[in-house]
Amino acid sequence: MRPGKGEAVEYVAGIDLGGSSAKIGLVDRQGRILARGQVGVDPVGAPDAIIARIAAGVRDLASRLSSGARMIGAGIGAPGFVDSEAGRLVGCENLPGLMDAAVPRLFSDKLGVPAFLENDANCAAGAELSFGAGRNFRSLILVTVGTGIGGGLVLDGRVWRGARGFAGEIGHLCLDPLGPWCPCGSRGCLEQYAAGPAIVRLYQWRARGRGSSSQGAALGSAMPLAATAEEVARRAAGGDEAAQRAFAEAGRALAQAFGAVLNLLNLEACLVGGGVSAAGDVLLDPVRKSLPDYVYPLVAERVKVIAAGLGNDAGLLGAAALALERMGA
Amino acid sequence: MRPGKGEAVEYVAGIDLGGSSAKIGLVDRQGRILARGQVGVDPVGAPDAIIARIAAGVRDLASRLSSGARMIGAGIGAPGFVDSEAGRLVGCENLPGLMDAAVPRLFSDKLGVPAFLENDANCAAGAELSFGAGRNFRSLILVTVGTGIGGGLVLDGRVWRGARGFAGEIGHLCLDPLGPWCPCGSRGCLEQYAAGPAIVRLYQWRARGRGSSSQGAALGSAMPLAATAEEVARRAAGGDEAAQRAFAEAGRALAQAFGAVLNLLNLEACLVGGGVSAAGDVLLDPVRKSLPDYVYPLVAERVKVIAAGLGNDAGLLGAAALALERMGA
Repeated sequence: MRPGKGEAVEYVAGIDLGGSSAKIGLVDRQGRILARGQVGVDPVGAPDAIIARIAAGVRDLASRLSSGARMIGAGIGAPGFVDSEAGRLVGCENLPGLMDAAVPRLFSDKLGVPAFLENDANCAAGAELSFGAGRNFRSLILVTVGTGIGGGLVLDGRVWRGARGFAGEIGHLCLDPLGPWCPCGSRGCLEQYAAGPAIVRLYQWRARGRGSSSQGAALGSAMPLAATAEEVARRAAGGDEAAQRAFAEAGRALAQAFGAVLNLLNLEACLVGGGVSAAGDVLLDPVRKSLPDYVYPLVAERVKVIAAGLGNDAGLLGAAALALERMGA
Repeated sequence: MRPGKGEAVEYVAGIDLGGSSAKIGLVDRQGRILARGQVGVDPVGAPDAIIARIAAGVRDLASRLSSGARMIGAGIGAPGFVDSEAGRLVGCENLPGLMDAAVPRLFSDKLGVPAFLENDANCAAGAELSFGAGRNFRSLILVTVGTGIGGGLVLDGRVWRGARGFAGEIGHLCLDPLGPWCPCGSRGCLEQYAAGPAIVRLYQWRARGRGSSSQGAALGSAMPLAATAEEVARRAAGGDEAAQRAFAEAGRALAQAFGAVLNLLNLEACLVGGGVSAAGDVLLDPVRKSLPDYVYPLVAERVKVIAAGLGNDAGLLGAAALALERMGA
């Protein structure tokens, strides 16, 4: 389906900014990635240097496309708080170098096309809506479970950004007012119960013998405890009871958060993405099982809890979808 | 500003259905109530009988207006779950007689105008947006604190009803997964901490001597314990420490719920209405004081926590605003 040489095609650059690298992709209107790459990012570098390097990567990718292809815009997804009115990052622990920088203007100058900035989880939600597991829904929440927990909302077929672009922070929904302190300054945030590091902690605690029998406990020091949520997921799939318990508890925490969101917003679907979601039903089944404890039966009735569809590409596809949306394309 | 005799005016009937009575009002396009009344409701009566009686009340009010005035529609706000697609009450503990009844069609038949049904808290949010304390905002939540806690959301200048019309159930947001059981089947719901009966319980517990010195404790049985949240509010305003503590705790619970909503939706304002909100700053000051504990600083920055503006009229004005909106008037 890719256009042949000489055939005109318009595309946008999707840029998924992270704290150590940026994923970049050239994406057509149908959400097909025509070319992709990755560029290192110095998180404390000067804005101009960071962005010049990424823009060079974009131009390099573009030079590999057929001469008829034309870049018409760029979308940038960034971790942290994006003031969408002002087009600036106003809170970004992982990328302090870009704090308060006019990111879209700098990209626009270097690429010669209009550029748009958005929170990365909002981007991912937009991508799932346009190209992924959200295509059949008008309202949904996407929760990305990784080192932290992000979220993006789609309401009535559009990404809901909030008054200033800060919407979707489900990772800091308070599940227990006396729960563990969170770096955000609050207590008992979802992130403290269901992000990757929390799943690893839960597993280690149980596998050290505080839970029921488990691979880790049975083999003692001969069997190193899992260091990543991915490893805990593998062990859960292989029957390790402590690993299954860890995912059951993370799933319950996610269900409590989804319950709050569903009672409040009466959405059609909850999508789970991010690195930890590769665990699939090891994570999703406990969410589905616990959800009825936290949501009105009528509200829960038709809700789907499903895996996000775009994996690691969600960020750059979402940034691209954002650019297309903003340009009314 | 009321139109004089003979001058043509169009109005809608606003009907605020409750478990024992319905408030009715005839409302013009500017939100002025031209006439108002109240009609008894038998909550377990037959739908036709309940609605015939209310419709007779509406016609009686209408007969008092000048002959040039013309009813063009009717809006009905009802407690419980309203399936807005189907135009039916699908969950209504307080009005079992109307369960599954085609409420708008029955009203339309009897009044000869188009009729529309909506959850009462969604109606009240729409009224605050159109005519009340929400006029200067594009996104807000209205929380009504009374015997229970209801909620309605305005997003981007419109009431957000959700996929099936069930949105806004903030009263059943889980504040503590191990908190008190709620009749809804979940635990630790906001309603269990901040509705009128919870405030009375908190006060009685403290005033009986489990808290610091208080009017109730000091005077013992000579001073009857407050039986209503309104009475607790009066005592708090008069310096009763146990009463102030009760409102401080209810305010903290509301702040936790608002924190969840704000982190998720990045709204401009939180409005507090319902009977208990007559307590004014006795309730709102603790909410404002506790809010920073539960919400990201950037998200909290410009949020207003204010009293709703329409008092007991919110329901019928909201039902009227709904009818006007649905008719595109």
